[in-house]
Amino acid sequence: EISVRDYQTCHRTVQLPGLVNIAAFVPGLVSRDSDDLQAVTKASIAAGFSMIRVMPVGKDGSISDLKSLKVAQQNGKRGAYCDFNLSITAASDNASQISNAAGEVGSLFIPFNHLSDNISKVAAVEAHFDAWPTHKPIITDARTTDLASILLLASLHNRRIHVTAVTTKNDIKLIALGKEKGLKVTCDVSIYALYLSQTDYPGCHFLPTAEDQAVLWEHLATIDVFSVGSLPYQLARFLNQPADVAVGIEDSLPLLLTSVAEGKLTVDDIITRLHDNPKEIFELHDQVGTTLEVEIDRPCVVAATSSWSPFAGKVLKAAILRVTFQDEAVCLDGSVLPVPPRGSDMSTHGALPPMVAISSPAV
Amino acid sequence: EISVRDYQTCHRTVQLPGLVNIAAFVPGLVSRDSDDLQAVTKASIAAGFSMIRVMPVGKDGSISDLKSLKVAQQNGKRGAYCDFNLSITAASDNASQISNAAGEVGSLFIPFNHLSDNISKVAAVEAHFDAWPTHKPIITDARTTDLASILLLASLHNRRIHVTAVTTKNDIKLIALGKEKGLKVTCDVSIYALYLSQTDYPGCHFLPTAEDQAVLWEHLATIDVFSVGSLPYQLARFLNQPADVAVGIEDSLPLLLTSVAEGKLTVDDIITRLHDNPKEIFELHDQVGTTLEVEIDRPCVVAATSSWSPFAGKVLKAAILRVTFQDEAVCLDGSVLPVPPRGSDMSTHGALPPMVAISSPAV
Ligand SMILES: [Zn+2]
Ligand SMILES: [Zn+2]
Ligand SMILES: [Zn+2]
Ligand SMILES: [Zn+2]
Ligand SMILES: [Zn+2]
Ligand SMILES: [Zn+2]
Ligand SMILES: [Zn+2]
Ligand SMILES: [Zn+2]
Repeated sequence: EISVRDYQTCHRTVQLPGLVNIAAFVPGLVSRDSDDLQAVTKASIAAGFSMIRVMPVGKDGSISDLKSLKVAQQNGKRGAYCDFNLSITAASDNASQISNAAGEVGSLFIPFNHLSDNISKVAAVEAHFDAWPTHKPIITDARTTDLASILLLASLHNRRIHVTAVTTKNDIKLIALGKEKGLKVTCDVSIYALYLSQTDYPGCHFLPTAEDQAVLWEHLATIDVFSVGSLPYQLARFLNQPADVAVGIEDSLPLLLTSVAEGKLTVDDIITRLHDNPKEIFELHDQVGTTLEVEIDRPCVVAATSSWSPFAGKVLKAAILRVTFQDEAVCLDGSVLPVPPRGSDMSTHGALPPMVAISSPAV
Repeated sequence: EISVRDYQTCHRTVQLPGLVNIAAFVPGLVSRDSDDLQAVTKASIAAGFSMIRVMPVGKDGSISDLKSLKVAQQNGKRGAYCDFNLSITAASDNASQISNAAGEVGSLFIPFNHLSDNISKVAAVEAHFDAWPTHKPIITDARTTDLASILLLASLHNRRIHVTAVTTKNDIKLIALGKEKGLKVTCDVSIYALYLSQTDYPGCHFLPTAEDQAVLWEHLATIDVFSVGSLPYQLARFLNQPADVAVGIEDSLPLLLTSVAEGKLTVDDIITRLHDNPKEIFELHDQVGTTLEVEIDRPCVVAATSSWSPFAGKVLKAAILRVTFQDEAVCLDGSVLPVPPRGSDMSTHGALPPMVAISSPAV
């Protein structure tokens, strides 16, 4: 669609805080000597994400015990270009083991769809709710009745729960209903799910239908966070395209800013969902001296690089001019400058429950 | 097991109120000119059940619209030997239609396992919660994550929900947890499920495992109601035995009273779960002049009649001496007397919401 805005020559330059990708997918996270974590942090900082939460998903990306956690920590020491934290994944039988790792990870991920058998799902999740420290975040990818199920358990245990990568109208409506009734539930939607649907890629069931996507946009107020997630990687695999570990990261902010240019989102909508809410929900550290400068309304053709993108050749109406990390410019006009990796593993931030302040006696 | 009690010669005669089977299975309920409802009421009154709630389940037993309701009502007019009421069954698409029938049935049954597709389950159940009158009972056979799912929806809508025919340790534990946390949930267990397990009938997955059964007994305090249900009929079909419509009804009370004789239950446990709680949960009418006299500790061999029973030839330690319905003896020593059928369709009892009393102004 061509709007009158396309003919404007005035571009807005806006400063944003460093952004958070709450669901970064790192394929080789727990493979020994993998460079994937470094590659993902490099693509992230160039795209404006100064903090990523690495989700423990996929065959070689899943941290489920202390051994795989150690490998991921070692890979993190190879040098990261932005800050990151690690999460641990729940299995049917590891509730007691992973509570030992609680102090060394940012959150517990309950991949509801991959818990072994249907019979034990409720019992397994129940065991995790009982074993995981109450102050630490829990995140899940549960869908439909599984989603309702985990929301009930969270409600019965008075726990906060974050639902990641919501794609359907029924799930977003259930979350909206839950919020309305006082459940402590938050959620994110993958940015690709806001811009690509099964109409674009028939048979691609992990994308929303066009109807689902319309309902997601209608429920913007229910969506706490935008994420990159593993959806871009899944799409590349589905289409037999080279599944670069950085796929989807670069497109994310320009896609959202294009919606700002088109009047569908505000800059505040983005800051809320890529900085403020992620920090609050996942109790993330402050990133001092970390900002980005973006230009909105500047038509920019998505380059066809070695990293495949479904948007290659399309015009987006935004560009990232500069990324500043820890008071140093690390990226100019989309190119990463030759700076050493300065990111840290922030997994232990917030590991301890908040201290109860002891009030001094009144004098 | 042989206990010292087997050698006692002193039998206790106890008077009970007329019992309620909250989940009666009537195979041909909505088949035109079927005698099944009459046959089930006759077997019920002989077995001490003066009121049955007919569950709308099975191929020819399911009331899902006004047309099938009319057929069932007609079959009820052929003469019933005890009181009964009818319920209507929820489908994926009949939420708006069945609310029209609300005034003519005792409750809404949500057969969660048979709702068409997984995707629409939550949305379909949500639609029923919104459409069904708030004062009328809702009953479901949901299991595992579906159970958790429907409990969440009930909780979000502040609705009471009754879970029928619980068979597994995980489900009874979830219900116990829900009750502990204040959910308005009640449940029943099929009497057969308390006495038969997959150890007795390998491969019979609708029976509890021996472990499940032990946990059900441990959670007696969580079980609000004992029911007959469709389990006896399912078992007969599974074993290729003649599936008489009355299967399981006659055994029910003697099985429970045998547990009284063995010290595993009290008479009060039975009255609570077959009279008091059913009346309260399903807002049933009072049955004046309706009682039964039973003898506990009298060894009685279960006769091998035309109606198949898995207990045929076994010794139960109880007998029903007399059933009085509406001040008339209708059954003596297990035989139905030649009395006309006096039962009524009580479906409209409690159809209207409770009246709000208007207080007179203080003088
Ligand atoms: Zn410009
Ligand atoms: Zn618990
Ligand atoms: Zn902090
Ligand atoms: Zn910040
Ligand atoms: Zn006697
Ligand atoms: Zn509703
Ligand atoms: Zn009444
Ligand atoms: Zn009574």
